[in-house]
Amino acid sequence: MDRTQYTLAELAERFALALHGDGSRVIDGVGTLAHAGPRQLSFLASGKYAAQLKDTRAGAVILGAQDLPDCPTAALVADDPYLAYAKIARLFEHRPAARPGIHPSAVVAAGARIAEGASIGPFVVVEDGAVVEDGVEIGPHCIVGRDCVVGAQSRLVARVTLVERVTLGKRVLVHPGAVIGSDGFGLAFERDHWVKIPQLGGVRIGDDCEIGANTTIDRGALEDTVLEEDVRLDNQIQIAHNVHVGAHTAMAGCAAVAGSARIGRYCMIGGDAGVLGHLELADRVTITAKSLVTHSIREPGEYSSGTPLQDNRSWRRNAARFKHLDEFARRLAALEKGRDHA
Amino acid sequence: MDRTQYTLAELAERFALALHGDGSRVIDGVGTLAHAGPRQLSFLASGKYAAQLKDTRAGAVILGAQDLPDCPTAALVADDPYLAYAKIARLFEHRPAARPGIHPSAVVAAGARIAEGASIGPFVVVEDGAVVEDGVEIGPHCIVGRDCVVGAQSRLVARVTLVERVTLGKRVLVHPGAVIGSDGFGLAFERDHWVKIPQLGGVRIGDDCEIGANTTIDRGALEDTVLEEDVRLDNQIQIAHNVHVGAHTAMAGCAAVAGSARIGRYCMIGGDAGVLGHLELADRVTITAKSLVTHSIREPGEYSSGTPLQDNRSWRRNAARFKHLDEFARRLAALEKGRDHA
Amino acid sequence: MDRTQYTLAELAERFALALHGDGSRVIDGVGTLAHAGPRQLSFLASGKYAAQLKDTRAGAVILGAQDLPDCPTAALVADDPYLAYAKIARLFEHRPAARPGIHPSAVVAAGARIAEGASIGPFVVVEDGAVVEDGVEIGPHCIVGRDCVVGAQSRLVARVTLVERVTLGKRVLVHPGAVIGSDGFGLAFERDHWVKIPQLGGVRIGDDCEIGANTTIDRGALEDTVLEEDVRLDNQIQIAHNVHVGAHTAMAGCAAVAGSARIGRYCMIGGDAGVLGHLELADRVTITAKSLVTHSIREPGEYSSGTPLQDNRSWRRNAARFKHLDEFARRLAALEKGRDHA
Repeated sequence: MDRTQYTLAELAERFALALHGDGSRVIDGVGTLAHAGPRQLSFLASGKYAAQLKDTRAGAVILGAQDLPDCPTAALVADDPYLAYAKIARLFEHRPAARPGIHPSAVVAAGARIAEGASIGPFVVVEDGAVVEDGVEIGPHCIVGRDCVVGAQSRLVARVTLVERVTLGKRVLVHPGAVIGSDGFGLAFERDHWVKIPQLGGVRIGDDCEIGANTTIDRGALEDTVLEEDVRLDNQIQIAHNVHVGAHTAMAGCAAVAGSARIGRYCMIGGDAGVLGHLELADRVTITAKSLVTHSIREPGEYSSGTPLQDNRSWRRNAARFKHLDEFARRLAALEKGRDHA
Repeated sequence: MDRTQYTLAELAERFALALHGDGSRVIDGVGTLAHAGPRQLSFLASGKYAAQLKDTRAGAVILGAQDLPDCPTAALVADDPYLAYAKIARLFEHRPAARPGIHPSAVVAAGARIAEGASIGPFVVVEDGAVVEDGVEIGPHCIVGRDCVVGAQSRLVARVTLVERVTLGKRVLVHPGAVIGSDGFGLAFERDHWVKIPQLGGVRIGDDCEIGANTTIDRGALEDTVLEEDVRLDNQIQIAHNVHVGAHTAMAGCAAVAGSARIGRYCMIGGDAGVLGHLELADRVTITAKSLVTHSIREPGEYSSGTPLQDNRSWRRNAARFKHLDEFARRLAALEKGRDHA
Repeated sequence: MDRTQYTLAELAERFALALHGDGSRVIDGVGTLAHAGPRQLSFLASGKYAAQLKDTRAGAVILGAQDLPDCPTAALVADDPYLAYAKIARLFEHRPAARPGIHPSAVVAAGARIAEGASIGPFVVVEDGAVVEDGVEIGPHCIVGRDCVVGAQSRLVARVTLVERVTLGKRVLVHPGAVIGSDGFGLAFERDHWVKIPQLGGVRIGDDCEIGANTTIDRGALEDTVLEEDVRLDNQIQIAHNVHVGAHTAMAGCAAVAGSARIGRYCMIGGDAGVLGHLELADRVTITAKSLVTHSIREPGEYSSGTPLQDNRSWRRNAARFKHLDEFARRLAALEKGRDHA
């Protein structure tokens, strides 16, 4: 059974943190500075919340050394309090372990291979040629399509669809509503109508990736759409066919990447940002929210597009002028020329 | 059985509207000014459609007093014709009532509690600790996860997933594909890889909320993501963890709100608009479509960002100049200085 | 059984292409210029990949006459190599044919009509009044709601929801997670709360349309939401109630169209572009990615909004100036006036 409580001293030792205060204090959960109680552990990781420290009723607080003097209760001092919190908080996440075995309602094709230790939930469909490795948990209503592989210890939370030729690495976590391996959007135009391009590739997802709710990842037209390891996708992200995302890149909700774009490693793509097709982004590129990337980026750094928010009346006046920017530039140059010749 | 027809006089009385014309006329449906027939009721609520009034073949029209002189048929005069239409039209929505009871294909955990009057459709999964109250209708393929509560008279249309620790109030309506209670997107960075932050909170949805198709609402990291009562979300909206949305706020399709943002009451968030994390919006703030909110808004009013649509050639010229706006500002100032010193 | 290989001469004849090189060469698949092997056919359709031609190991290449001199292997010369590729590649797409019949787990209402040649997969729900025509393939977890019609030879890949009053034409292809026929987002405001407008219309989808993964199409408020024939929608597109999309129009991922907008024929709507409600777009209008259409467009052509991507520091400086554009315009005019009067 999961343990449900720890002393502060135990936590300090286990996570190699410096303890200040009473190590025998018992902790059975985590909470925010504002609402944690005396048996809960809180954390301070951002200056935004520093003012809440002095009034906290938490049993203890994970914080940086600089905040220790202001802490009214016991403390665990960490170089990176947010990271330390992330690790400790896992102890207090009590999800019942999935029971290995195949739910009687599941429909598993004769040609599928399910490891003994895997758990297959209600109404799951596993099609021919699919492989589900050991320790995998497949929640209700998931579909593991033809020739898909779900790597060891991965978890499809619920209602995830792997369409076909999708390979997930180990410890991949996929949230409800995600669709992986759907047809890429490929069309050729013939005289007066569209002709569909067959989508013959697959999708390869590396170890430790996380795919958000209702995110879609199309399979490749000829070769594979690829996410390297530890890629983290939030909800409602769209990854088109033959995109390649480098390891450890994270994308916030509603970001979209068009076909054959190649994103580097350790990139951060902001919420609702877009990347056009066939572009390349170097490693460690950050795109801010709602920006559109229209050309390749060769240098690490932060990039943006868009205009600032204003009250609608001011915005309307300024936006109307945007339509004349080129003309303004010419008029400005003419004035300068006039002055220089005066 | 549902009644399927009403006389105009009955409708006038029931909805407290002034009747002009033959009260014995029978109405059995509603329609647009352009296409309603003599047994249908239409309405005029926007000047955009005023020109269609004179040619309408509708049996009667709901309209404001100012349009009465131009009405060629019977009329029901309302202060707010659109609102009156909304209420009357419900009479003509003939959805068969869901049959109470649990469909034999549903998988209901022993530890779940289903009210007798609730209706549970085919292939529904109800997990341990879940509560489904009276009069609830849960359509096919829905999942009511661990410790979720579906309040009385709520309806999950079909294929809705409540992941865990989600509480819906009364009369909540959730459309297909919505995912509520998925993991928030929380990550800490450790040296060279991501560490997931456990998402230990839940989601609380107030009475009379409506959640659109394929909308996603993540559960909180520590405390809950909250929608107060009568919040109306269109399709494909993304609500991140720990967002708080005030009562009666409406969001149009594809809007997205990042983590811990706090939206006021009676706000209107336009289609595909975005709100960055940790911001606050006052009550009665309107954000126009596709705008990005990058700072807190303290005053009610309408706010916007973006640039106007132009033909691509003009747009390209102007957009290129945008990259030099700061330089233009300096050159403009230099010219002014020159003039003032001349 | 599907044939799995063809000689080049057969392909040349079947698709009316000029053959250069050894017609007896056997082809059993397709591949990219960079990775195709000697039994695979590749294609060159874009200058972007021209440099890869000289090193290709493909058995043959489909290309335009102008590239023939640089081709190191056999070739099939086409006026439109991409289109020729699209057609030939279909030969090598080996999807097992769906077996006609109804999977024993499916729940089909007594009042539904399923053609004998249709294939109904596991956990499918077909409700009363629904019609599934001949040759239709309905994959696992789909819902065909009340009074929906699925036209002959259409395919719902998996987990597609047709909510109610949805009519699909022939050969319509719908990808996983799509929701068609959900309630339009219609609200009237009463004093201090919202009143829902019943959504009494349906959705009509023409022949040969394709609907992407997790795309949503609401049904009309009174009349129908309409997609004419051969409309192609990518993933995560949102089509609001009463939108009308003309034949052969294509929309890229995450595009959104608000209520009652009318899009012409042969339009191209870019990724994440938006169209406001009640607007009209003429035929052959192209909207570039992430642009917002705020007024009707009467002329064919390409239209855009937005600002170019820059490094964040430059962008911040320029964006800040955007808020003063109107003032700049006035100051510029004042300077010009001063000069003209000098």
